[in-house]
Amino acid sequence: MMNGNRHIVTLTTDFGHQDPYVAVVKGVILSGFPSATIVDLNHEIPPFDILAGAWSLKMSLSYFPSGTVHIAVVDPQVGSSQRRIALQLEDSIILAPDNGLMTAFVSRAKKAFVLDKSEFFRTPVSSTFHARDVFAPVAAQLLYGVGLEILATEIDIQSLAQVDGLEPTTGDGCTEGAVVYSDRYGNLITNISADIKSKIKAICVGGRLLTLASGSYDTVGDGDAQVVTGSHGYLEIAMKKASAQDFLKVKNGEKVKVETVC
Amino acid sequence: MMNGNRHIVTLTTDFGHQDPYVAVVKGVILSGFPSATIVDLNHEIPPFDILAGAWSLKMSLSYFPSGTVHIAVVDPQVGSSQRRIALQLEDSIILAPDNGLMTAFVSRAKKAFVLDKSEFFRTPVSSTFHARDVFAPVAAQLLYGVGLEILATEIDIQSLAQVDGLEPTTGDGCTEGAVVYSDRYGNLITNISADIKSKIKAICVGGRLLTLASGSYDTVGDGDAQVVTGSHGYLEIAMKKASAQDFLKVKNGEKVKVETVC
Amino acid sequence: MMNGNRHIVTLTTDFGHQDPYVAVVKGVILSGFPSATIVDLNHEIPPFDILAGAWSLKMSLSYFPSGTVHIAVVDPQVGSSQRRIALQLEDSIILAPDNGLMTAFVSRAKKAFVLDKSEFFRTPVSSTFHARDVFAPVAAQLLYGVGLEILATEIDIQSLAQVDGLEPTTGDGCTEGAVVYSDRYGNLITNISADIKSKIKAICVGGRLLTLASGSYDTVGDGDAQVVTGSHGYLEIAMKKASAQDFLKVKNGEKVKVETVC
Repeated sequence: MMNGNRHIVTLTTDFGHQDPYVAVVKGVILSGFPSATIVDLNHEIPPFDILAGAWSLKMSLSYFPSGTVHIAVVDPQVGSSQRRIALQLEDSIILAPDNGLMTAFVSRAKKAFVLDKSEFFRTPVSSTFHARDVFAPVAAQLLYGVGLEILATEIDIQSLAQVDGLEPTTGDGCTEGAVVYSDRYGNLITNISADIKSKIKAICVGGRLLTLASGSYDTVGDGDAQVVTGSHGYLEIAMKKASAQDFLKVKNGEKVKVETVC
Repeated sequence: MMNGNRHIVTLTTDFGHQDPYVAVVKGVILSGFPSATIVDLNHEIPPFDILAGAWSLKMSLSYFPSGTVHIAVVDPQVGSSQRRIALQLEDSIILAPDNGLMTAFVSRAKKAFVLDKSEFFRTPVSSTFHARDVFAPVAAQLLYGVGLEILATEIDIQSLAQVDGLEPTTGDGCTEGAVVYSDRYGNLITNISADIKSKIKAICVGGRLLTLASGSYDTVGDGDAQVVTGSHGYLEIAMKKASAQDFLKVKNGEKVKVETVC
Repeated sequence: MMNGNRHIVTLTTDFGHQDPYVAVVKGVILSGFPSATIVDLNHEIPPFDILAGAWSLKMSLSYFPSGTVHIAVVDPQVGSSQRRIALQLEDSIILAPDNGLMTAFVSRAKKAFVLDKSEFFRTPVSSTFHARDVFAPVAAQLLYGVGLEILATEIDIQSLAQVDGLEPTTGDGCTEGAVVYSDRYGNLITNISADIKSKIKAICVGGRLLTLASGSYDTVGDGDAQVVTGSHGYLEIAMKKASAQDFLKVKNGEKVKVETVC
């Protein structure tokens, strides 16, 4: 069976770095497929924050090579009757619980599958650690080239859970989005595409009117938070060598209102 | 020489993530064996906490494939006359200082060796960084298939240092264990096997009587800490979407008393 | 083309661990060269701290095998007209912005190149994320064995930016250096070589006179900060199972004065 580049697995979780949970998942993948290349995509999703996990996936997956298997586990409902899903994209596969983590990819998915064949899981499956017991062994099978048709059961793509908040709403001369991620530098990343930038009349965040910087972080003026085009093509609120998050006292989820010319 | 899967090395340390120490160890391993697959098992063992390191190893090593070499360095006595050990298990090897880190594996070890042949070390061996100067180059030799009989000198397994606290004590209708690890979510992990769960009459932690949840984290009631079966098969104290550690103000080492039916 | 060990890339950044930025860089490298081995050298350089980045590189690169490509990005000026550089060393290559990060390696460099050929970059190149758009795709080309003469344009090594502070100044019976790094244990690492140790009469840090420990951390006396030979061969200020940084209330950059015998 053609397998191509299929030896790369990425991991997106809210497990953090101070516990051995992530390593155990890697051990199970390597036990199944010893030549896997495993990449930590993000383990610092805020605990149980499905929207932040969905945003992190949306921003990252396109940079990985064809054939990559992406495991994403932010799973407050682990152990419930919630389904475990494999989403087949054009040239990669996402494994995740059915709770909206895959929202950004549903519209472009080729097929969806429910992972319901326990012969491919670790035995016994715990009620608390499906990354180890379900997703890791299934990922190893996928690396070997076993198809999802064998490993899982196809379901209707439209039946998948989705989360709100990844996309802004656009009305008459107004776009309303939100801060969806705060990075290490305190830059506040919004879900509003920077394509809108040339048409912006005013931006409000937390009751404060912000100005546009001309270009990148480097062009932000001293002492004030300004709006720049972020590296992923979305509007970001940044300060010059300082934290916009600390300055504006704004949290993830805060509304961002943009008034535009027609 | 048959080498099988032997290309995987795991690292367990108290080095943290903000220094280049871990990377330097990886550089030395890769310099000796460029196709090594190196997995970070845990670098956030609290500094000098040998018991937490021993617990992390106990919870994790069985998930890795046959042939894996595990390096563990939590080493307050580095530079003293303390021995450096290689412990040969059924299908893997642990390299660690002789301070109790390997406690959980001593009873099932096949052979033990002292690393006393400086021709296999980096030159000169520093007094402060044996992970780089002793364990990493020896691990690279092991990946090449060089045997411990050549690299080291066999010693009596019973001579190895061991730590207390990995196992609870069981008396007449009472099991006394401890919180041995606190994870990112504030779950308090105990050293008491969940096999006891159906026989529990009462659980006390920090002077407080706790109730049992019926299943996993998902079944914990609102607003109170309850006892669940953790993903590794040990009793854990958890809250619903909150930190049991913050709620109970309990630290690692806190006694956990379980009263059981006969 | 002979390529030898050339499949290892290290990453040194101030990106931290809570964002997907590092993973995106890895995705781009793996998209270009799927069998790359990528090692996280250090992602916790304090934001925009070029000196700490330069020190971390100085301490680490020599441990990696011949053929390694090192990417270093601490880049407060990203998006400005600052050059992106490839520095050819004896047996490895550093890719970094021209802001002093490579200072420790300039004097031993074989050749220097400016990365000015956009056909080897991602399209379009963002103004904020050159690790992803410039350095990662160039690194993938280097792993394939494409030479710097093809990928870039040679420049004068002496034209490279350099930072002060990596080296102490030595006068008549006196060496004045600085604390350049504080590690997880609170050890204060200085830029003064421990070769000087046998000639030391007195060491002052933060207005306080320190004594020398006889050997490694293990020989430090209780309750006081003392000076030891660190694992990299530089003087370090350490305490016995405690943080010298907390005890002395000293920050990176603090002057360290050593009085020596003639």
